Amino acid sequence: MKVVGLVTEYNPFHNGHRYHIQQAKAVTGADVVVAVMSGNFVQRGEPALFDKWTRAQTALENGVDLVIELPTFYAVQPSHIFAEGAVRLLSAMGITDMVFGSEHADVDFLKLAEQAPSVEDGHAFQEKNQTFAHAYATQLAEETGFVLEDPNDILAFGYAKAVIKLGVDMTLHPIQRVAAGYHDQSFADDQTIASASSIRLALHKGKLDKVQGVVPEATLQAIAQAPHTIAFETPFWQLLKYRLMTDTIGQLGQVYQMAEGLEHRLAAVALGEPGPKNYQSFIKSVKSKRYTFARMQRTLLYTLLNIKVDQMQAAMQDPYLRILGFTDAGQQFLNQIKKTVTLPLISKVDQNLAKANLRLDYKAGKIWQLLANEPGQQQDVTRQPIHVTGQKQADRGETNEIS
Amino acid sequence: MKVVGLVTEYNPFHNGHRYHIQQAKAVTGADVVVAVMSGNFVQRGEPALFDKWTRAQTALENGVDLVIELPTFYAVQPSHIFAEGAVRLLSAMGITDMVFGSEHADVDFLKLAEQAPSVEDGHAFQEKNQTFAHAYATQLAEETGFVLEDPNDILAFGYAKAVIKLGVDMTLHPIQRVAAGYHDQSFADDQTIASASSIRLALHKGKLDKVQGVVPEATLQAIAQAPHTIAFETPFWQLLKYRLMTDTIGQLGQVYQMAEGLEHRLAAVALGEPGPKNYQSFIKSVKSKRYTFARMQRTLLYTLLNIKVDQMQAAMQDPYLRILGFTDAGQQFLNQIKKTVTLPLISKVDQNLAKANLRLDYKAGKIWQLLANEPGQQQDVTRQPIHVTGQKQADRGETNEIS
Repeated sequence: MKVVGLVTEYNPFHNGHRYHIQQAKAVTGADVVVAVMSGNFVQRGEPALFDKWTRAQTALENGVDLVIELPTFYAVQPSHIFAEGAVRLLSAMGITDMVFGSEHADVDFLKLAEQAPSVEDGHAFQEKNQTFAHAYATQLAEETGFVLEDPNDILAFGYAKAVIKLGVDMTLHPIQRVAAGYHDQSFADDQTIASASSIRLALHKGKLDKVQGVVPEATLQAIAQAPHTIAFETPFWQLLKYRLMTDTIGQLGQVYQMAEGLEHRLAAVALGEPGPKNYQSFIKSVKSKRYTFARMQRTLLYTLLNIKVDQMQAAMQDPYLRILGFTDAGQQFLNQIKKTVTLPLISKVDQNLAKANLRLDYKAGKIWQLLANEPGQQQDVTRQPIHVTGQKQADRGETNEIS
Repeated sequence: MKVVGLVTEYNPFHNGHRYHIQQAKAVTGADVVVAVMSGNFVQRGEPALFDKWTRAQTALENGVDLVIELPTFYAVQPSHIFAEGAVRLLSAMGITDMVFGSEHADVDFLKLAEQAPSVEDGHAFQEKNQTFAHAYATQLAEETGFVLEDPNDILAFGYAKAVIKLGVDMTLHPIQRVAAGYHDQSFADDQTIASASSIRLALHKGKLDKVQGVVPEATLQAIAQAPHTIAFETPFWQLLKYRLMTDTIGQLGQVYQMAEGLEHRLAAVALGEPGPKNYQSFIKSVKSKRYTFARMQRTLLYTLLNIKVDQMQAAMQDPYLRILGFTDAGQQFLNQIKKTVTLPLISKVDQNLAKANLRLDYKAGKIWQLLANEPGQQQDVTRQPIHVTGQKQADRGETNEIS
């Protein structure tokens, strides 16, 4: 049984993801595909369009054999922590091959990571009015000649750094990104592959017909079935504004990644007159040059979820493998690793787990439901992993083959 | 200039209030009526139907000469603190006569209060499974023979206790409650006076025509003009649920009046599966026999506003007279007391006051607006007191005379 690991958000799952799965198998000769997938919130600090179960189901119907949730404390983090968390989970299952997209698939990221300055030293060379990522990339370019600026390259670099840091046996297989750039905002009617962000934008504009050509049937079904959080910004801003208006500065100051007195600025702007119109204008009002947009969004999400520094740090010490779903092959793989896996395998969450290790994921699920303004199915307690049988998976495959 | 003081909520202002104002003048021979009025939240722990400015305007157009805001730290409190706050503000202005409704206007409440057990000792005789108010009333009945159970009697008793405790010169004039009981839930079409709670209920049911006979024109105008919080329970529960889902138990435990481990029950019920459907069913789930409904609602409002024990206690040490509006006569009275008033007179709130003394009122105004789901006019900073001129007041009076 040859296994390949992927790191995913599937927000939403689209044809490019199907292509990526096929490539991952072709490149590695794997017959089992394991995806570590963000839960109900994604790395940009936004709620996922569809809940983790819906997205796991779609992935399982489209080539993935096992979906493991990337816990909130890894999923909603800067890329180096996100990447390290993903590598840690994959290698805990004994997986030794990762395939991922990259804008520069010819680069040896492990070698680059070995030559690169330490991330921890990064703050030493950070100047005023620039983000940490920019400062780091500048330093890296000076030392290695490689310009680390494309989003998939940055993640690839993060995987490589993590492999070195964790000292795990992991072969990295970057594959060239095709057809759609990460930041492309639109796509043509005859395209079969488009970026997730352009698909989200089309959905946000209500152009459902436009996305039909670029996502599989399962995603179309998810779109048709509420709840989802395409229009999340209004309820997000309502709740965030409420918290910023009522929490003390002391409480806000304890939130993870709340730095440099940001809590004062957040509260002052939220309470000011007449106050920002919406979430976008709020972010513009509070953002400084030292923060990327994504970092600001993440910090605001930590604020919304009220994740304190000590809670986040404690949670990160205690990772686990939460099974969201599997195919028959995925189940076989799970049986095979049962005795060798080096992190707890969790298939069912009871109230005790929801109050302990999985507290942040549980809370995130509750708030995701609140933002989706639809109770929907509860996200954690007593929920069983999805089992997609071989027949169902094959059916889906036939009717949705990418030309 | 003979002045009489009233303690009011005007939620909403109705014909009974007009009658009360006329009676107050008749009983005391006063030519100036000063009303201390709850701000944007009322004693039951609910948002007022209309904001404090709208309600002050209505009062000024219907016989009141000066409206002073009863600050949040007095207004949203058990009746004895509510009453003490009101007496304190009225006597700070040199007012020596108070008129209030009572179910037993023949009772000498000062004498009753002198004979009564101390409120502070009350917890000593409180037994399990009863509220403090019930335990206190039982003890009082044993000692004095008077059964203190009607809501206006309870407030009257509170005023008397406060007069004794504060040692102020204040004559209490109870007048018999007529026509509508506090708790009456309905009224007939030919009634001209109905209780505020029955009017709120009619409004909640959308029966606007029904209330036309029992409120003055100014209240009808307020009803016609958003924003108001008639349907406050859905947004209130949304925000409260969000807080209970995300705050730590430690944070919830610091909320004013959060006692006996109530914070654990609140969080457990809010986070439970499937969770309460709405605010009413939530209150039912968490209420015990030791809490009155109103006390539970107040505690939940403190939670919503995130008012901590220390904040509430500090705020109560530092009362003030916030002027919401006046008539010509009210303005004359203000000029007269300017040099003798014993608490700060505040006619305009700037950002500094909003961050200091008036922080709770400011926050309450912001959250009231959030619940009304309508920014409306901001509630505090830079807002000027309303000045209703004699002409306007007279006009209103003529067209709305109670038959």
